[in-house]
Amino acid sequence: MTGTTLDDYTDRYARRVRGMTASEIRALFAVASRPEVVSLAGGAPYIAALPLDAVGEMLGRLGSEHGVTTLQYGIGQGTLELRERICEVMALSGIDAGCGASPEDVVVTVGGQQALDLVARLFLDPGDVVLAEGPTYVGALGVFQAAQAQVAHVPMDADGLIPEALEAAIADLARAGRRVKFLYTIPTYQNPTGVTLSEERRERVLDICERAGLLVVEDDPYGQLGFEGDAPAPLRARRRDGVFYLSTFSKTFAPGLRVGWILAPHAVRDKLVIANEAQILCPSGYAQAAVATYLGTMPWRQQLKVYREVYRERRDALLDAMADLMPEGTSWTTPAGGLFVWATLPEGLDSKAMMPRAVAARVAYVPGTGFYADGTGTGTMRLNFSFPPPERIREGVRRLAGVMEQEIAMRRVFGAVGGGAAGRRGQAGSDVPGPDLA
Amino acid sequence: MTGTTLDDYTDRYARRVRGMTASEIRALFAVASRPEVVSLAGGAPYIAALPLDAVGEMLGRLGSEHGVTTLQYGIGQGTLELRERICEVMALSGIDAGCGASPEDVVVTVGGQQALDLVARLFLDPGDVVLAEGPTYVGALGVFQAAQAQVAHVPMDADGLIPEALEAAIADLARAGRRVKFLYTIPTYQNPTGVTLSEERRERVLDICERAGLLVVEDDPYGQLGFEGDAPAPLRARRRDGVFYLSTFSKTFAPGLRVGWILAPHAVRDKLVIANEAQILCPSGYAQAAVATYLGTMPWRQQLKVYREVYRERRDALLDAMADLMPEGTSWTTPAGGLFVWATLPEGLDSKAMMPRAVAARVAYVPGTGFYADGTGTGTMRLNFSFPPPERIREGVRRLAGVMEQEIAMRRVFGAVGGGAAGRRGQAGSDVPGPDLA
Repeated sequence: MTGTTLDDYTDRYARRVRGMTASEIRALFAVASRPEVVSLAGGAPYIAALPLDAVGEMLGRLGSEHGVTTLQYGIGQGTLELRERICEVMALSGIDAGCGASPEDVVVTVGGQQALDLVARLFLDPGDVVLAEGPTYVGALGVFQAAQAQVAHVPMDADGLIPEALEAAIADLARAGRRVKFLYTIPTYQNPTGVTLSEERRERVLDICERAGLLVVEDDPYGQLGFEGDAPAPLRARRRDGVFYLSTFSKTFAPGLRVGWILAPHAVRDKLVIANEAQILCPSGYAQAAVATYLGTMPWRQQLKVYREVYRERRDALLDAMADLMPEGTSWTTPAGGLFVWATLPEGLDSKAMMPRAVAARVAYVPGTGFYADGTGTGTMRLNFSFPPPERIREGVRRLAGVMEQEIAMRRVFGAVGGGAAGRRGQAGSDVPGPDLA
Repeated sequence: MTGTTLDDYTDRYARRVRGMTASEIRALFAVASRPEVVSLAGGAPYIAALPLDAVGEMLGRLGSEHGVTTLQYGIGQGTLELRERICEVMALSGIDAGCGASPEDVVVTVGGQQALDLVARLFLDPGDVVLAEGPTYVGALGVFQAAQAQVAHVPMDADGLIPEALEAAIADLARAGRRVKFLYTIPTYQNPTGVTLSEERRERVLDICERAGLLVVEDDPYGQLGFEGDAPAPLRARRRDGVFYLSTFSKTFAPGLRVGWILAPHAVRDKLVIANEAQILCPSGYAQAAVATYLGTMPWRQQLKVYREVYRERRDALLDAMADLMPEGTSWTTPAGGLFVWATLPEGLDSKAMMPRAVAARVAYVPGTGFYADGTGTGTMRLNFSFPPPERIREGVRRLAGVMEQEIAMRRVFGAVGGGAAGRRGQAGSDVPGPDLA
């Protein structure tokens, strides 16, 4: 399973990494997916925490007892049954009938990725600009790139997107005559940083976008995975209009079913359905029935608590290990939920150049550059804590810290550690064996 | 289930029908989906012919025993296991290793629709021209429209696409300075006509496209559903290069799982995978495991025979009833496989204008105009025989023939029957009750 997750990531990541060839990266990740490697690189939920026997029984009945419906074609918007259940899920976060949420305006998608792709398809023309946090979700960068749009990153701090920076970016782009289509934001337990946009900033960000006439695309896969009480209400809970709310069951139930959704502004709901039909005809009836039945008959709220507990324990393991083991000069975020911690390395370290040595030391992470459209992020990395158990996380951090210490020592000896090639030359004089790039 | 299928069709069709508002069409199809209406309008396979108990048992085990893999993320290209099984399926039609088919070049998609959408996304720019049979699959028209491409129809006869007409269309478009990107064709048991491109024409069509430097996008959802021996080998079995081969398990197993595929020319396989990832991240691991396990452990070749038998019997029921009951001047195709018959009405009848009266008489079909990008097809309709049982098919034809006889009689009395409004006015003086468009 770790293998699958890493393989999955390889191709996407390979295309976003500069300075290494795709085949080098592919080989690297192939090595990184070996069981002896502690992978902090993935983004996979811990499926083993699900009651798989009960889930399997449910899935079986959906075929044997309801196959003539679930295995047949369905409608492009998704089943009403699931859209109603989705509204129950959103209501937990405060997106309810009171703020205009209705099954009428929900469009079921193939995971959160297709939700994003549909919005991009509807709104983006080549040359358009999308504003997004820097760093942001690598899959969103892929969507915007496919749409030939350009991403302008807005800096973040520990409270999320910086409103003043957003205002400045909008003004700069207006002066430059660029057409900005929307703000893409993951306000809660962000991927890749784990950071949450503060209560106060949520209102300011919405006001700024409203004044600028900018749509907001709110991506919220992690919002119900908080470890320290509830997150601030989603942006969509605060505004009826101008916000697309995107989410998915990939983190709270099962990514392998590929079920996500968009709560769309009513005026564009039909257009999204048309686009969905042109793309996939209809979402899987079977997968929709699986999610709807899971939500309708199984203790999903209890399961959310299980996930929160599991992930909180693993986050703590990661943060504790980092506090104990990381070299001086390393800093990191302290997420209150989600799956990721974002680390900034001591001055001069290059997470991409270091990756082959890390894998050789049997630990993997995702170098930070993949999460930026502009090539920055060299000294950063994303660490996942949802998948490996706590003791493996601690062992991974121990290995990673060791590699970093050696990098720092090498820098002292050789001046600076360059890109991949320079790094590999450097290995001759170090204790780190060369990675198997065969 | 009939309801689902019709509902599904409603939205797509509503947007392609001129002269009636979307809400009129929606209301019409809502009525048409009532159980008392014989629907010859769908395109749904007869799922009840599957061994649903065994399928359900298999689906259950994929969750309970293999959930940690099947419910997890996967890779963008699709699992190797399924891609290998897909190659076994294609080999049945002659697309085998000998002509360069390999799991390496298979990309798993969300049904055949996403396969088509990915190819369109890769190749089409606004203003491009796509050549396609006239009539052609309504969902393909949606894809090309979404890509802002224009469709130029190539006429067909009983042997499929007419090569001389294809040559002429290519020459005309070249003279007009238009950029033609590919020929989209469903050569075997075509949707909507049921017609098959003859052996001899297959080579000629390929030669013409080769000479013109045109890619061929071969859509083959029905090729294994032949009633009279094997169909001529697919175009992809005849040429290694220049042919995209698209297919799906929607007609041979279960559309509700949404699993299709592209066998791509090797040179563009990577680009398709990138596009697939940008769109959906990865296909459903669970659905892929379901199809792969179905193909690996269940008697799917035997099941194909069951489908062929069921559909042959229903086709015969449709053709026999048409021969017995259709008014003089009606003609229709005689499909050797697939799901559809295409009928051409007696001179002067308008299948779209007649639709409300047909639904009032408790029979539904799809008016032919939806299958053309250019508004032609007024006097034609598509009739499905895969879903309703033979006795219902016969009853449906009886009702349809009755409506047509009345239309013909009305034409004699009133001159010509106009569009929907004129048709409704005409009802006051006819025996056909007005449709419930509430």
